[in-house]
Amino acid sequence: MLPNLYNTDDTIAAIATAEGVSAIGVIRISGKQAFSICNKIYKNKDLTQLNSHTIHYGFITDGDEVIDEVMLSVFKSPRSFTTEDSIEISAHGSPYILSRILQLLIDNGARLAQPGEFTMRAFMHGRLDLAQAEAVGDLIAAQNKAQADVAIKQIRGGLSEDIKSLREQLLNFASLIELELDFGEEDVEFADRSQLNKLIEQILHHIDPIIQSFQYGNAIKNGIPVAIIGRPNAGKSSLLNLVLNDDRAIVSDIAGTTRDTVEEVLNIEGLPFRFIDTAGIRATQDTIEKIGIEKALKKIEEAQVVIYIFDVSDTSIEEVLADLEMITAKNERIHLVVLANKTDLIGQSAQSNLLQQLNKVGYTNTLSIQANKGSEQALLVLKSTLHESVKRGLVSDGQTILTNLRHYKSLSDAREALQVVVEGLGNRLTSDLLALDIKRALNALGEVTGEISSQEILINIFGKFCIGK
Amino acid sequence: MLPNLYNTDDTIAAIATAEGVSAIGVIRISGKQAFSICNKIYKNKDLTQLNSHTIHYGFITDGDEVIDEVMLSVFKSPRSFTTEDSIEISAHGSPYILSRILQLLIDNGARLAQPGEFTMRAFMHGRLDLAQAEAVGDLIAAQNKAQADVAIKQIRGGLSEDIKSLREQLLNFASLIELELDFGEEDVEFADRSQLNKLIEQILHHIDPIIQSFQYGNAIKNGIPVAIIGRPNAGKSSLLNLVLNDDRAIVSDIAGTTRDTVEEVLNIEGLPFRFIDTAGIRATQDTIEKIGIEKALKKIEEAQVVIYIFDVSDTSIEEVLADLEMITAKNERIHLVVLANKTDLIGQSAQSNLLQQLNKVGYTNTLSIQANKGSEQALLVLKSTLHESVKRGLVSDGQTILTNLRHYKSLSDAREALQVVVEGLGNRLTSDLLALDIKRALNALGEVTGEISSQEILINIFGKFCIGK
Repeated sequence: MLPNLYNTDDTIAAIATAEGVSAIGVIRISGKQAFSICNKIYKNKDLTQLNSHTIHYGFITDGDEVIDEVMLSVFKSPRSFTTEDSIEISAHGSPYILSRILQLLIDNGARLAQPGEFTMRAFMHGRLDLAQAEAVGDLIAAQNKAQADVAIKQIRGGLSEDIKSLREQLLNFASLIELELDFGEEDVEFADRSQLNKLIEQILHHIDPIIQSFQYGNAIKNGIPVAIIGRPNAGKSSLLNLVLNDDRAIVSDIAGTTRDTVEEVLNIEGLPFRFIDTAGIRATQDTIEKIGIEKALKKIEEAQVVIYIFDVSDTSIEEVLADLEMITAKNERIHLVVLANKTDLIGQSAQSNLLQQLNKVGYTNTLSIQANKGSEQALLVLKSTLHESVKRGLVSDGQTILTNLRHYKSLSDAREALQVVVEGLGNRLTSDLLALDIKRALNALGEVTGEISSQEILINIFGKFCIGK
Repeated sequence: MLPNLYNTDDTIAAIATAEGVSAIGVIRISGKQAFSICNKIYKNKDLTQLNSHTIHYGFITDGDEVIDEVMLSVFKSPRSFTTEDSIEISAHGSPYILSRILQLLIDNGARLAQPGEFTMRAFMHGRLDLAQAEAVGDLIAAQNKAQADVAIKQIRGGLSEDIKSLREQLLNFASLIELELDFGEEDVEFADRSQLNKLIEQILHHIDPIIQSFQYGNAIKNGIPVAIIGRPNAGKSSLLNLVLNDDRAIVSDIAGTTRDTVEEVLNIEGLPFRFIDTAGIRATQDTIEKIGIEKALKKIEEAQVVIYIFDVSDTSIEEVLADLEMITAKNERIHLVVLANKTDLIGQSAQSNLLQQLNKVGYTNTLSIQANKGSEQALLVLKSTLHESVKRGLVSDGQTILTNLRHYKSLSDAREALQVVVEGLGNRLTSDLLALDIKRALNALGEVTGEISSQEILINIFGKFCIGK
């Protein structure tokens, strides 16, 4: 049975560093008995007598037996991560020694912490709100600059401050309207309807870009899907190799992404791009081949960017235009980059003629490239094109970026409820009906920061954390 | 090119915790510029103004960009592991964040630490002697109680104190004898020969059990090899399963052991036993089968314990005695445990008759067992028999135990040199010849604690450490 996570009376302990033989391993203890339990296995000093934020040398002992030579960090309530009395034992990084010390702590009255339980206590004691706590998990999992940047901003309260101040203003109106309900018969209006209308407009104006930033935030978190589309032998694989073999490229995995095709993640200027290689497309009557091509085109629907590559020496402008039409028909909002490959095989004038024709019909993101020759210049341009095409229009500098699906859903709920309130105000709806929708918006906003939360939500959030956090 | 490890003027940095997504990761910085380098990326306080052994909250920044929210531990020279100014940055356990912070430190003037370089500095600044430093590495690699116990005793100076005090006494005599050399022509004796003889006897009396403990220490470090020998179908595999499936058994790997047969390591009362399963043995004329049996018997030479198991319902006492004779002929010093298996298949009296016959010819370590039936009682007895048969006679309680081959070699050298001195004293050898052998003994003893060391030895020792230690 799971321990009752709402009960913070007991003292929890866990190994907080990664597993493996290493120089240092850290064990964390938090709770009312942190000092008294540690006093039983660390005899060098009486921990209750020490100042907070001080470090002490000594030995962990089990009776007469010395287990390890350690440094012990003391954090006194409320000046700790959890706001509880806390100890961090920095021991030698032997998995055996660390598990031995943890066992000693448990034998002396501590309980093994559940995943995320330290952060959950920090949340329950008001040290962090829920959005900040979730960002702690995001930061730990960060694999590139963009992910880390968003997470650290959110830990520092970026999103929370935005939401909290909007919610508080709305709360004032809500209580005035609730008051009107008490005077139900008398038809009074304590809450100024036009001011309320103005406030809601302000709130919508504020949360709209935050909600919209989710597309970008989600891309940061899961990698921006880039489908490489082209006819057989257009140079798709050469292009992929060219992009991935670049020295400045850091190829990495993003945990948890489903892959039914070859996918490689590449960080470009701190943004993760997930490259999806697909089968070649071409007009065909063959039923089986049609299925394969349909599958490749399906990737277009999931992609945020499509790189269409074609062999200039082997493809007519009509064929290119037909392909491009097919692609944009699949996904109108796609960021499309057109690569004219093997341009060294045709003359300079044929080349510029081709690009002009494409530009004329609206395909402006067009580059010429020799994928199999590693053209560095084209690669640079391609990368910055990718980066720009994704970031442009989605977010402005310094804006709060939403990466969390839960926040996105709550904010979308809040927006919907607020839009209903605006309509209701237009229709001169009665206070009791207005109050219902305002409450819905308040709840939705409160869910983001955890002012409104359920045990289910908390278990869901903190259960994904690692043990010791 | 390797940096000059003897040069401790520069400031070194490394990630000190194991790699992996985790709650906490720690970066260590040590050296003259530790505070000034960290001041460039941590702006919350001026680190040079803080007290030693204090912890500070704040942010790691790269210019205006916030990288992480951290706790920073300050250790002022000489009150640190290396005795140098040191900082430990406790950051979120994201490999991305940790490598980013490490890179920042390097960009600001730190050098990436070599494996073991922190401990090497602790040694070079006299905070640890060489035997203690080596024990730090042993403790980190400890996988069971016995290994950890020996390492922590050695870190606390057990071996070092023994050796140092003996060496100092010998050094006094050595200087007196050196003095005699200055008066070469005059045939004086400043060093009392009978006292010197007595001291050397004392030293030998003291280091002999330490040298002998290496057999036990080596067993602790590498696992005690136990060969299971028996005829085909005697029950070897059932026995192995029985032993390994026991709940109280912790099966683990010991890194670096060579295995050309199935080997499993089992901790019994904190001691690691390395079980070696072998092919069945039996009298045969078949040349090919003979080779296989010879291979199994070869394991006996490498083993410290042999468990001989036989099927009482299927093997005559003559056959058993013949097998046992063959085993003891291979290795006279072996600890032999004889298991009479499937004793439920014969009567009680036949069983006790059998055991009596074996006892009579000197095989006293004899147990009866039903290996395929999981007899718990027999298992307990087997385990304690194994434990006792290995520990008995090798070490006494509280004795210093040698686990390190280098120490074993140095102490053996010292013993040899001292024995030559004793002989020389008996033969009334001249001072100059005595002085040579005493010097050899002094050097050998000094090698253990590192009073005598070469860069080659140091690189060899610390190169095996992990980075960050």
